[in-house]
Amino acid sequence: MESDEHPLIIVSNRGPAQFNRDDDGQRTISRGGGGLVTALSGLVKDRHALWIASAMTPEDVAVTEENEGKPIDVNLNGVDYKVLMVESQQAAYDRFYNVIANPILWFIQHYLWDLSNAPDIRREEIDAWYNGYEVVNEDIANCVITQIDDRESPLVMLHDYHLYTAPAKIRAARPDVLLHHFVHIPWTQPDSWRVLPTPIREAIFNGLLANDIIGFHTHAYGTNFLACCQRLMGYEVDFEELSVIHPGGRTMVRAYPLSIDADRLERAVHSERVAALEKEILARRREHLILRVDRADLSKNVLRGFTAFDTFLTDHPEFREKVTFVAHLQPSRQDVPEYAEYLERIEALVAVVNHRHGTTDWMPIDLRIYDDFDEAVARYKHCDLLMVNAIFDGMNLVAKEAPVINVRDGVLMLSENTGSHEELKEFALTVNPFDIQDQAETIYRALTMPPDERRERANGLKRIIHSRTPADWIDDQLADIELAREARESV
Amino acid sequence: MESDEHPLIIVSNRGPAQFNRDDDGQRTISRGGGGLVTALSGLVKDRHALWIASAMTPEDVAVTEENEGKPIDVNLNGVDYKVLMVESQQAAYDRFYNVIANPILWFIQHYLWDLSNAPDIRREEIDAWYNGYEVVNEDIANCVITQIDDRESPLVMLHDYHLYTAPAKIRAARPDVLLHHFVHIPWTQPDSWRVLPTPIREAIFNGLLANDIIGFHTHAYGTNFLACCQRLMGYEVDFEELSVIHPGGRTMVRAYPLSIDADRLERAVHSERVAALEKEILARRREHLILRVDRADLSKNVLRGFTAFDTFLTDHPEFREKVTFVAHLQPSRQDVPEYAEYLERIEALVAVVNHRHGTTDWMPIDLRIYDDFDEAVARYKHCDLLMVNAIFDGMNLVAKEAPVINVRDGVLMLSENTGSHEELKEFALTVNPFDIQDQAETIYRALTMPPDERRERANGLKRIIHSRTPADWIDDQLADIELAREARESV
Repeated sequence: MESDEHPLIIVSNRGPAQFNRDDDGQRTISRGGGGLVTALSGLVKDRHALWIASAMTPEDVAVTEENEGKPIDVNLNGVDYKVLMVESQQAAYDRFYNVIANPILWFIQHYLWDLSNAPDIRREEIDAWYNGYEVVNEDIANCVITQIDDRESPLVMLHDYHLYTAPAKIRAARPDVLLHHFVHIPWTQPDSWRVLPTPIREAIFNGLLANDIIGFHTHAYGTNFLACCQRLMGYEVDFEELSVIHPGGRTMVRAYPLSIDADRLERAVHSERVAALEKEILARRREHLILRVDRADLSKNVLRGFTAFDTFLTDHPEFREKVTFVAHLQPSRQDVPEYAEYLERIEALVAVVNHRHGTTDWMPIDLRIYDDFDEAVARYKHCDLLMVNAIFDGMNLVAKEAPVINVRDGVLMLSENTGSHEELKEFALTVNPFDIQDQAETIYRALTMPPDERRERANGLKRIIHSRTPADWIDDQLADIELAREARESV
Repeated sequence: MESDEHPLIIVSNRGPAQFNRDDDGQRTISRGGGGLVTALSGLVKDRHALWIASAMTPEDVAVTEENEGKPIDVNLNGVDYKVLMVESQQAAYDRFYNVIANPILWFIQHYLWDLSNAPDIRREEIDAWYNGYEVVNEDIANCVITQIDDRESPLVMLHDYHLYTAPAKIRAARPDVLLHHFVHIPWTQPDSWRVLPTPIREAIFNGLLANDIIGFHTHAYGTNFLACCQRLMGYEVDFEELSVIHPGGRTMVRAYPLSIDADRLERAVHSERVAALEKEILARRREHLILRVDRADLSKNVLRGFTAFDTFLTDHPEFREKVTFVAHLQPSRQDVPEYAEYLERIEALVAVVNHRHGTTDWMPIDLRIYDDFDEAVARYKHCDLLMVNAIFDGMNLVAKEAPVINVRDGVLMLSENTGSHEELKEFALTVNPFDIQDQAETIYRALTMPPDERRERANGLKRIIHSRTPADWIDDQLADIELAREARESV
């Protein structure tokens, strides 16, 4: 798309590669970041981008030190990455990650705080901001500044909620840099940000507004961001043009819905392991298979999903022994008490539902608390209903992955509060995530839907999902960056 | 102000009078509604208004039946009220009050839902809407319609979150009526309303938009309401003019901050009982008295207030035995499990703080879980710091009452998320209600504030609070109603 005259730096907390040691003490390397790495791999290939990320494991630190702070070359799944990992002081990183980014910002941006109880902003949280989040953002920013030193008009693309204050630090050193930031999670409405002390809130917004462009998955998140700039910061915003005027200039806000690599996913299905898993799934399947695949996160709404299934079985006893609900839940953040407790409550509820409805020959809910992508993919292929009922969810790529490879004209139940709902609503069955009765009735509707309607909806989903590729997602961003560069150069 | 040609009806769930039976079986009558009844008494007197309300007690029902559904005359504190109580079927009223209005709407409008756990919208909640909230609103609307029958251009002023759908029902029967609705609690941002199923959400907004004017305590709540009409309903809104265009016409949104009757409050202080209580308070007082007076509601943020006091005592041991924190908490909604549990957690926390810091001669926190206005008033007069740290609060009249009668240049700590903060922020010490460290430091700042600054702030508060009376609150509304009437007649 462009020549190398404008060097490109990608910045994210979690990089494309993570180093560890196996049981034999051998160094291992694994691909990190999921959908993000897939989406950016094309860009990395074409533009010889440098990817700056945090050193997250002791082995990441070791690799970084062996290379004396120089970028290393890593080949993963046929793509060559140039990676530079930034080591922050361990205590600072821990505060950044485990006090600020994952509980506080994640909870704010998914409306998860139970406000009459939490959060409590005490000395520890204030300290975690100034001596944690700000320090790691400074470390990352300094690394970027060093890498773009004596290079003209560089482009820096930052990612997600870990790096909200780095842009202002980079901008201060390099007024000429083009800064682009993509936020992968929802942007919530102004009042949800009021849990933060004013100086922290201001640092976040002024940090982000140092970017030329801020990208979100949906138009609605962009509008929420503008409302925050207006209501919390008193800045002038333009809801038509989607821009913010602030003391540092003008920042554009844009929606770029992330796509999946549907072709790659379709190819991945044809592995031997997936075939073996499919065989077992087909041998054991009942008439109807309901599936959910999620990280075990509070935002995913697992409890209400099972309660809805419970209600469905009570309302429709004719489905007894004819349906299995398989739930793949990848354990997540088990060191955060709310998450450990959440998994316990899920297991307890599953026991209750299975006890209430099960028979000696039939366990209604099959709960699988581990991460196995092949197994999930094998079930994507053969499910009759995929349940995505998240409370709030930035995009939800599961809703795009399963329909692409499903061979049974499976139905998609989709929460109206997911980013993917903006694209898929015409062919999905929309549910309100808080409305259990609605979800129970939607299960019934899906399992009794006439084959013609199932086919039409399934084909519609496939068509929409195939209509955009990760390259489109990148190209849309680069096109806007080009406009921003022209605007900047014409001033 | 106006002649009787335009009859006036006031409508609220809780009316100005409530009937009961005492232990001897004698009928008793008590004044209800607090600030609202005070504020409206002038209007009732001048305009011979009819006040329609729900019959809330068995004795309310008995009185209503004795009068064969005709209005009754009641004299309370020297004001003559004409009251008509509406009896709804008991089961419907219970669903209206205990399932929809108090938990669901109250929680939505104070951001109190812990969304990963609650609410669950099941058949019971849906039923409570259609066979509870809608039924009581229909009963009230029908009573209004009967009372304005064959009267020209009547004015109906409705109050609060119990009556969101009544306006549309009245409008359907009487296109010529002038409808005004005042909402006494915060109006929250669009996403907080997404917990409700779409048809219920739509009934609420379309119900309210049948009004000519909707009043809120603050401009910010009005802006939030407009954002809801735009984002949830797709209606055209004008944030400058503060109006909504919808299929039924145009609705104006206005801010009318509720005032207290400062003169009346100052007179009330001079009772014998208050004098006796003051004497005791003065005999027992330490150097510093911190006070809070609240309903024991989850929105009031009692726990963080005590935790802040705990932090303050830890940070400043020099205040040991020199300060008492008296907390008057009026028990509330103890049949709602969240409220009962909240009081238990408050008591447990007070025990911990008193154990941690107390001595044989000193109990730092004095918790009083009962309702005694005289006692609260006596302490208003002599406190050095009033703590109002609510999470979110429509107005908070305590913040206006205490400064008016305080004789010690007492300092006001005021949450930035209360309605009264818009008026009082210049002279109060603003706190973020989630920031415990901020509140602890504000206690220190208040108790060590130079006398000159205390006096200046206390005088500033008195001046602002005295500058508006309940009559102003009413007059502002009537002036806008007059404009609406002219606009309506000129069409």
